Formats: sequence, C-alpha cells, structure tokens
Amino acid sequence: MAHIQLEPGQPGILGLFRFRPETAKPLAELADVLLRGPSTLSRGERELIATVVSRGNDCSFCASAHGAVASAQLAGGAALVEAAAQDIDQAPISDKLKALLRIASLVREDGRAADEAAVLAAKTAGATDLEIHDTVLIAAAFCMFNRYVDGLATFAPSDPASYANQARNIVDHGYLAVSRG
Amino acid sequence: MAHIQLEPGQPGILGLFRFRPETAKPLAELADVLLRGPSTLSRGERELIATVVSRGNDCSFCASAHGAVASAQLAGGAALVEAAAQDIDQAPISDKLKALLRIASLVREDGRAADEAAVLAAKTAGATDLEIHDTVLIAAAFCMFNRYVDGLATFAPSDPASYANQARNIVDHGYLAVSRG
Repeated sequence: MAHIQLEPGQPGILGLFRFRPETAKPLAELADVLLRGPSTLSRGERELIATVVSRGNDCSFCASAHGAVASAQLAGGAALVEAAAQDIDQAPISDKLKALLRIASLVREDGRAADEAAVLAAKTAGATDLEIHDTVLIAAAFCMFNRYVDGLATFAPSDPASYANQARNIVDHGYLAVSRG
Repeated sequence: MAHIQLEPGQPGILGLFRFRPETAKPLAELADVLLRGPSTLSRGERELIATVVSRGNDCSFCASAHGAVASAQLAGGAALVEAAAQDIDQAPISDKLKALLRIASLVREDGRAADEAAVLAAKTAGATDLEIHDTVLIAAAFCMFNRYVDGLATFAPSDPASYANQARNIVDHGYLAVSRG
C-alpha cells in the first residue's frame, strides 16, 4: 500500500500525477523534452538510458515502464533492452551509446563519479556536448523519478501487458498527455 | 573545468540553464512549485529539506545555494540550517520537521528506504499526506539537481557572498526568473 492516499488503480507515477497536478506538469514536461524532444539521440536510445538507470536503482515500475517504451522504439526491441541492462559492454549497440550508458551509470551512483575519463571516452566515440549533457540529465532525472515512485511506495503492476499498453500511449501521445490521464 | 563548454562566470546550475533553455524551463518550474508554491510547509522549511539532502550528497553548489536561501527565510538563520544539517535529532526544530527531514534523508539514500515506520512517525507528529508527498519529491528532486550539477563538473564558487546575493534574488523573484538570467 502506498504511504499516502492515492486514487486506486493508478500505478507508479500515474497516481502521483493525479494526487499533485501542480508538480505533474513540470515533471511530465521534463520527460517530454528529455526523452522525446528534438535530439541527435533517438527516442529509443534515450529511453534505453532511462531504463538502464532505473534497473540500476531497482525501481520496478520505472524499469518496466521505460523498458517497454524503449522496446517499442528500438529496432532490437526487448532483447536489445535486456542485453544493455545486463551488460553494457557486450550489448549490440554503438560505441557512442555504450560510452553514454557508462556515464549514466556513474551519475546514478554519484554525480562526482562521472569523471574526465568517462566523458573523454564518450567524446572520442563521437558524442557531442549536448548528448553528454542530456545523458547526465536523463540519468539524474531518473534518480529523481525512481525515488519519487518508490519513496511513496506506489504500486507496480506485475503484468507486462499493462506496461506495453501504456508504452503505446506514450509513444503516440507523449508524457504530458499521459500525465493528464 | 566543466565536462562540456558552458558560458564562463555562470556557476552550478546557472551555466546549465543557459546551455539548455528547453530543460531549464521545467526544472525551474518544478523548483518554484515545490519550494515556493502554496504549501502548509514554509518556504524556509522546504529549502531546509533541499539543503539537508544536498549536504548528504556532498553537492557543494546546491548545499551552499539552498543553504543561503533557507537561511534568508528561516527565523533561526544560518545557525539553524547548520544545526539541522549536522544533526536532525538535536536541531531546534519541530518534531514534524524532524520526521520529514528523516524521510528526506532516507529517500536520498534509496527510495525504498523510506519505510512505513518513518512515514508513521511523520503522520503521528502531524504531517499531512501532501506534506509527506512534497518532502519525498523535494528529496528526490535534489538527488537529480545534485547529480546534474556535479555530473557535469560545474563550478561552485567558494565565496559565501555570491550565494547570499543569489539567495536574495531567488527570495525576491523565484527560480523561473533566475533561470532566465
């Protein structure tokens, strides 16, 4: 049971969005800009960063929700997402994306862990300043979203179909639309 | 030196706001709603939660910046902020605020660490569901802001006067105004 009284049947952050629309708006806008706005990183790549961070933080709701959105937007689908979540080095992804996922994993632990060497590796693999910026902010933002969802003990469905349904909604309409219910 | 090329002379998150105005907007809106919007927690109390979390994460810029804003808005000033950052239990603050700061400190470590007992203690001390929600989200948000600022190795001034000046700006005009420079 959640720590506070939420609308029943609204899992994870969805119940929190309904509980506090004033904070839902900037949170959903941040997710839309970072994960869906104009970028040289594909939407699938950005959702993969969000998923790897959420898996690292053991946040079941966010890992399942963004894993489903990443799967829906990456040619490699769920198998690629699982491979990257298990082992960045061995995943069938570009060297640039590997380097960005390593930065994200360091930021997840502690901002100061993202050192010069990790950033240099990403730049050497072709990452731009904006891609590095967005990777750090996606990782940081999911350290927030994960703690928000789990810190209030919200409900995470166990049925993969519910995440797949919601993912289609997000792919088609974005986070701001979904946050409004 | 920061990991990416930022406008010189803009410390901490200010340089990042200028680098990426698209993400600055929802981030500053979130800070305004959470730390300055209508609430039964005073602005000083909410800034104290942000400061204690930033101190826990060793984020020099955020701890100094929000410590200055908290000091400017709490009757106990900088001495009260320092007391709470050093030892929540011994600080001259209400039992309710102590319980909320304890929840924030748990969320800082891991969302799942904020357990039923910590939430029950806050409710017993008179905290409402909305106050608990906002405390968890402030703590989670500063786990993002701290990682954003430190993950990109931004500059943190050592001069307390620069934080005091910026704090006056924030107290008078809010985060959205400051984010626009």
